[in-house]
Amino acid sequence: MKRKLTLKLIAKELDVSISTVSKALRDSAEISEDTRQKIKAFAKLYNYKPNNIALSLKNRKTRTIGIIIPQIVHHFFTKVIKGIEQMAREHNYNVIITLSNNDFDKEVLNMELLANGSTDGFIVSLANETLHKDDFRHVTEAIDQGMPVVMFDRIVDEIPCDKVLIDDREGAKMGVRHLLKTGCRKIAIITTKDYVTIGKLRTKGYIEALESYGVRVQKELILKLDNIDRCDDECSAKIKHFLKDNDIDAVFTVNEMFAVTAARHLNALGKNVPTDVSIVSFSDGELSKHLIPSLSTVSQHGELMGRKAAELLINKLERPEDEVEEYTTAYIDTTLIERESTKKIKN
Amino acid sequence: MKRKLTLKLIAKELDVSISTVSKALRDSAEISEDTRQKIKAFAKLYNYKPNNIALSLKNRKTRTIGIIIPQIVHHFFTKVIKGIEQMAREHNYNVIITLSNNDFDKEVLNMELLANGSTDGFIVSLANETLHKDDFRHVTEAIDQGMPVVMFDRIVDEIPCDKVLIDDREGAKMGVRHLLKTGCRKIAIITTKDYVTIGKLRTKGYIEALESYGVRVQKELILKLDNIDRCDDECSAKIKHFLKDNDIDAVFTVNEMFAVTAARHLNALGKNVPTDVSIVSFSDGELSKHLIPSLSTVSQHGELMGRKAAELLINKLERPEDEVEEYTTAYIDTTLIERESTKKIKN
Repeated sequence: MKRKLTLKLIAKELDVSISTVSKALRDSAEISEDTRQKIKAFAKLYNYKPNNIALSLKNRKTRTIGIIIPQIVHHFFTKVIKGIEQMAREHNYNVIITLSNNDFDKEVLNMELLANGSTDGFIVSLANETLHKDDFRHVTEAIDQGMPVVMFDRIVDEIPCDKVLIDDREGAKMGVRHLLKTGCRKIAIITTKDYVTIGKLRTKGYIEALESYGVRVQKELILKLDNIDRCDDECSAKIKHFLKDNDIDAVFTVNEMFAVTAARHLNALGKNVPTDVSIVSFSDGELSKHLIPSLSTVSQHGELMGRKAAELLINKLERPEDEVEEYTTAYIDTTLIERESTKKIKN
Repeated sequence: MKRKLTLKLIAKELDVSISTVSKALRDSAEISEDTRQKIKAFAKLYNYKPNNIALSLKNRKTRTIGIIIPQIVHHFFTKVIKGIEQMAREHNYNVIITLSNNDFDKEVLNMELLANGSTDGFIVSLANETLHKDDFRHVTEAIDQGMPVVMFDRIVDEIPCDKVLIDDREGAKMGVRHLLKTGCRKIAIITTKDYVTIGKLRTKGYIEALESYGVRVQKELILKLDNIDRCDDECSAKIKHFLKDNDIDAVFTVNEMFAVTAARHLNALGKNVPTDVSIVSFSDGELSKHLIPSLSTVSQHGELMGRKAAELLINKLERPEDEVEEYTTAYIDTTLIERESTKKIKN
């Protein structure tokens, strides 16, 4: 059986990692001169091409959209997929989904897999590891070869492509302002470390909201966690101590898992939600809706984001060939969904 | 651009539905003789082949597994996918996911899409509409052409392939027995209509558990709903009235959404969970874990199901060509997860 030479096969053959191969072929200074030469010689010898994108574009239209996302055990991503599926169906496109599991190598492989003639374009949300590594050449290469890419949620500014975002700062501001309007003044935030852009921006929004009400920002009321999607035992313990040690009347969280975990600890501490401590969470998922009390949230409208991403991609795929390349960044408005975890606004 | 003739294109060309084309090509009596002849003539004229499976099998191994599932806004399916991804990765396979949205036509199209040379085999859970229609020829055709298929959860007995299941009757029996052991005797069940096999089997388990304790089965304590995955306003209202109208000390539900909805209504009715009414739910999802009180559940171990399904498929893909065809049905054990919605067992 003759196999197409892939990054993976080169890596296996030369006993190095996929990212080493990927970097060496791009002449990255991170890789030693010797290794680089070896990998490049091997690739040349076996006529390796980064991928078959150009070929597939010329030969056929698959009418298939490829989605590459970090994971799906996450309500937000399932909503985005739902939106993409809807729009794709309306325009007679198929959809194929692959997961990176927040892993850089897997993301690179998925890109190669889908670029290999089975899709016409990509909708991508980057893996955490990719954001951490700060290496996006697998995406920019695809774009350079004429493969349309739309990014959403976990994006980087420097990649030239269409993007769909929400205004994280404004969304957080709206959420915290709601807490202020209901009379809360000792408002804590549970957020991520700053390397996660959305956590950073949402924290910014929290600070701006407090300042606009003349409320002093207290460092000890800001909890920055390493976790992004899940809240494991360590994360849960940190939230527990944070809530126990601080005198607060509200907590704003940048994701749903932090909010749900906080609700449970407040309950165990004998605090009533919302009478003693109010909660507003960023992200409107299934848990927020069904928790008792249900959670007031800043909704990201994942379905709308998905629809918009698919629309932008389909527009690119169906545009006349001689049209000038232009990139759009679309913002989806967030909205506040008032439920049972916040007090009514006093008139 | 020369396109490969697909069911969809034939349907479009002749202005009929995809399932009409699909049925006509299979000589279904549901389609008029005239239409059948027209469609078959067209397909013959343009040399339509059901799909290119045989071709792709001969020419290459993609080392890619195709998943076709009804939807992903459902924790169980995301867990199964996680398990498939794990096992696939351990054996150096890629995974591509497509969603049928519980729609028959979409399922047929997805099958065609993935069979078209991009995958080596399928893992499938059928769409509700497919179960309703009782038409599985898109699956059996793929199998006939040598494409290995593993089915899980929403399966049908008559398709000859590997299957991964749980023992729904035993699982439900275990859940209801737990309620009996904690002293409950007025136990209701919220289940699906009988055409959903898993609902039917779980109801059977409920009845058997009651009978094994000498508790009389009361028809009015069995609520059968049309909903499967979601619980909309109508479904919620039915559950509300059911809980209000009946004197019960426990409720067993065949899925998580029914349990969460019941918990909310019990709360609104001023009933304490578990003191007044205990709850056990089939399916262990995120909601069960995070609800306050958290829900005792019968876990289906979606991740294990996914791992097993992938293992069976990979075994088929890597078996020697001359091996005799054999089909396995693997059962994954369910387990009871005790949480806060049930009382402690009295010694």
